[in-house]
Amino acid sequence: MKIGLMGYGIVGRSVASILDERKDTELKYILELPEKCVQERMVSDLDIILNDEEISVVVDALPAIHPSYEFIKKAILAGKNVVTSNKAALSYGFEEILTLAAENHVCIKYEASCGGTIPDITEAVRLSETNEITACYGIMNGTTNFILDSMEKNGSDFDETLREAQKLGYAEADPTADIGGFDVKNKIAILSATAYRGFVTTDFPVCGIEKITKDIIESFKKKNRMVKLLGLSLRKGERYALGVVPVVLPLTSLEANVPKNFNIFTLKCSNAGDVKLYGQGAGGYPTADAVVRDVLFMGSDIYSRPYFLNQLTYDESILTGTGYFNGNTKRGTLSELLKEAGDTFFAFEPDFLN
Amino acid sequence: MKIGLMGYGIVGRSVASILDERKDTELKYILELPEKCVQERMVSDLDIILNDEEISVVVDALPAIHPSYEFIKKAILAGKNVVTSNKAALSYGFEEILTLAAENHVCIKYEASCGGTIPDITEAVRLSETNEITACYGIMNGTTNFILDSMEKNGSDFDETLREAQKLGYAEADPTADIGGFDVKNKIAILSATAYRGFVTTDFPVCGIEKITKDIIESFKKKNRMVKLLGLSLRKGERYALGVVPVVLPLTSLEANVPKNFNIFTLKCSNAGDVKLYGQGAGGYPTADAVVRDVLFMGSDIYSRPYFLNQLTYDESILTGTGYFNGNTKRGTLSELLKEAGDTFFAFEPDFLN
Repeated sequence: MKIGLMGYGIVGRSVASILDERKDTELKYILELPEKCVQERMVSDLDIILNDEEISVVVDALPAIHPSYEFIKKAILAGKNVVTSNKAALSYGFEEILTLAAENHVCIKYEASCGGTIPDITEAVRLSETNEITACYGIMNGTTNFILDSMEKNGSDFDETLREAQKLGYAEADPTADIGGFDVKNKIAILSATAYRGFVTTDFPVCGIEKITKDIIESFKKKNRMVKLLGLSLRKGERYALGVVPVVLPLTSLEANVPKNFNIFTLKCSNAGDVKLYGQGAGGYPTADAVVRDVLFMGSDIYSRPYFLNQLTYDESILTGTGYFNGNTKRGTLSELLKEAGDTFFAFEPDFLN
Repeated sequence: MKIGLMGYGIVGRSVASILDERKDTELKYILELPEKCVQERMVSDLDIILNDEEISVVVDALPAIHPSYEFIKKAILAGKNVVTSNKAALSYGFEEILTLAAENHVCIKYEASCGGTIPDITEAVRLSETNEITACYGIMNGTTNFILDSMEKNGSDFDETLREAQKLGYAEADPTADIGGFDVKNKIAILSATAYRGFVTTDFPVCGIEKITKDIIESFKKKNRMVKLLGLSLRKGERYALGVVPVVLPLTSLEANVPKNFNIFTLKCSNAGDVKLYGQGAGGYPTADAVVRDVLFMGSDIYSRPYFLNQLTYDESILTGTGYFNGNTKRGTLSELLKEAGDTFFAFEPDFLN
C-alpha cells in the first residue's frame, strides 16, 4: 500500500516513523512547505501526490482548519481514501466531507481526530451496527484533565496549574481551545454523529474550566465529588442534544479517577450497556498509531454516506440536570442553566448519568 | 447472511432475538435437544446445519467444553465460519481450533468468549497490528468483582456476600469456576494469545478470592488500597508469563473503582500506551451483542493461522512483585510467592503495574 502524508509535525513524524518500519506500507510522499523539503519524498505540490495512481491513501496530519479542509476535499475528488487526525477541519466540514467521500466511493476515516489512540470511533461504528446508542460522553481533552487532576492532587489554583501544564507540554501557549472547551466541542460532535448515524449541529452550549478554583474543587471533594470537563451527548429517538461543560461526578466514578492527560469515552448502548474506552487522547505516537490502524484496516469499516441515514433533530430540552452555581443549585436544561450562570462558576450534573 | 445457532440458553436466545430483528441476517437453524425442538427452525442434528450450503456462519452459544469443542471442529471442517462465546471450549482447544480454521480457510471469531460485550479481542487484534503489546491485565469476571465490590461497600463477609450474589443471579449455584479464578484463567489465556500473536500455555498459577475476608479488605482500605481479582499477563520479547490472582491496587486506580459485575481490560501497547476497555463481561444481551458483531464484521479482522506466528516461551521468572500474606509481605515471582502462601490468604502487587 502506497501512502501520501500531508503534514510533518509531531503526529506526521510519528506516522512516518511507524509506516517506515512496516513491510506492507510505503510512505511515498510527504507534503511539506518548499523550504522544508529536506527528504527526497517530500513535495510541496499536493497534485504530485493526487496525480500518482499508486497512492491509495492520503493521510492528513495538518494542524488547522485550512488548508486541511480544502486538501481533504481535493484528495477525495481525486479518488483517494483519506485518513485524518485533524478534528478542527473535520468538524468544520463534517457533513460535506463525509457526503463527498460517499459520492466518490472512497473511505474517509478519522479515529485519531477524536480521542487520539482511543478506538472510540471504531467502536461507535461497530456498536451502532447492533445497538441504538443513546448517549456518548467523556473526558475528551487531556489538557483540562491534567489541570483538574493536578489541582485536586496538589491543592493548587488554576493559573498556577495551567502554567505548570504549559511548562510540561500538556498545554499550549494559547490554551483557549482546550480550557475553553472548544476542542471537546469538535470531538463530541464528531463522535455523536458517528454513534447516532446522523449529522449533528455544531451550535450547542460550551463552557470551559476557567472559573474552577481550588476552593471549588475542595468543596466538592468534601461531598465525595469531583468536577471534570465532559463532552455530553444524549439521544432520545430522533431528538438529540449536545454540550461541553464541567460535570459533577461521584469520587468513585471511573471518570473522577482518570489521571493526568488521559481520556475516557462512554457509549451507552441498547444491547451492550455502557462501554467505556480509555487511553491517550493526544501525543505523537498514540495519535499516529490510530492513524496507521485506520490506514491498515481501511476496508473494514462503514464510513460512507449510507451510514449517516438518520435524520436527527436538535432539541436542547432533553439535556436536563442540576446546575451548580457559586453557593446554590437549580434544576433545568443545560442551556437555561448556563445562561443563568453568565460569567460566574458553573458545573452540571446531567440526569442521564444518574 | 444465513446463520445456524448452536445452543438456546440465555446467550443463544439473545442472539436469536437480535438476529431476528435484522433484515440482513436470517437465523435459519437452532440446534436443540430433540425434546426441546419447539420452533420450526430447531433441529437436533448438527449435520442438517453443516450440510446446508446457504449457511455461512455457525454461532456456538453452548455452555460447556463438550460437545462445543467437537461441534466447533466439525463446523470448521464443513467449511463454515464460526463465532463462539464459549471460553471453556475455546481455551481447551485454542491452538488446535485456530490452526484448523486457518487450514480450512474459514474465520473463527470469539469476542464474546473473553469479556462478554467488551471489544477487547477486536482491539487486541487491531492494536497488535501496529504495536507490540507488552502486557494484558484486568478484571475479567463479574461474579468476583460483584462480591469484592459488595464486601467493600457493605462491610459484609465473603460467605454472606456470595449467597447474596447467588440470590441476585450474579453467582452460580456452584461458584467454583468464578471464585476460584478458573473462568479468568481461560480468558487471560485467550486474550494473551490474541494480543501476543502466539499460542500460550494453559498451565500457570491461579489463586481465587475465597480467602479474602472483610477484615482484609478493611485493612487494605485503611492504606488507600483495594484488592481485586485480576488476570495478569506480561510479555518481554518472546518470553511471557500468566497468572490469576487477587491484586493489590491503589484506591484511585480505575480498576479499584470498577463497580458491581463490570469488567475492565488493559492492553499495554508500544505506540498507543495503555488502552483500557470497560463494560459488561457477561449477561444475555451484552454477550449476544458481541456475538452478532463478530457475525456482521466477519470478514473484517485477522484471525487465521498466520496471525499466531510468534513463538513464545513461558518464563514465570518475569512475573515478579510483592506478595501480601496474613501480616507480612515478601518479594518474588508470582509462582514462588503462591507456593509459600499455601492455603492462607495471598494477594499480589505486580512490578509491571508500578
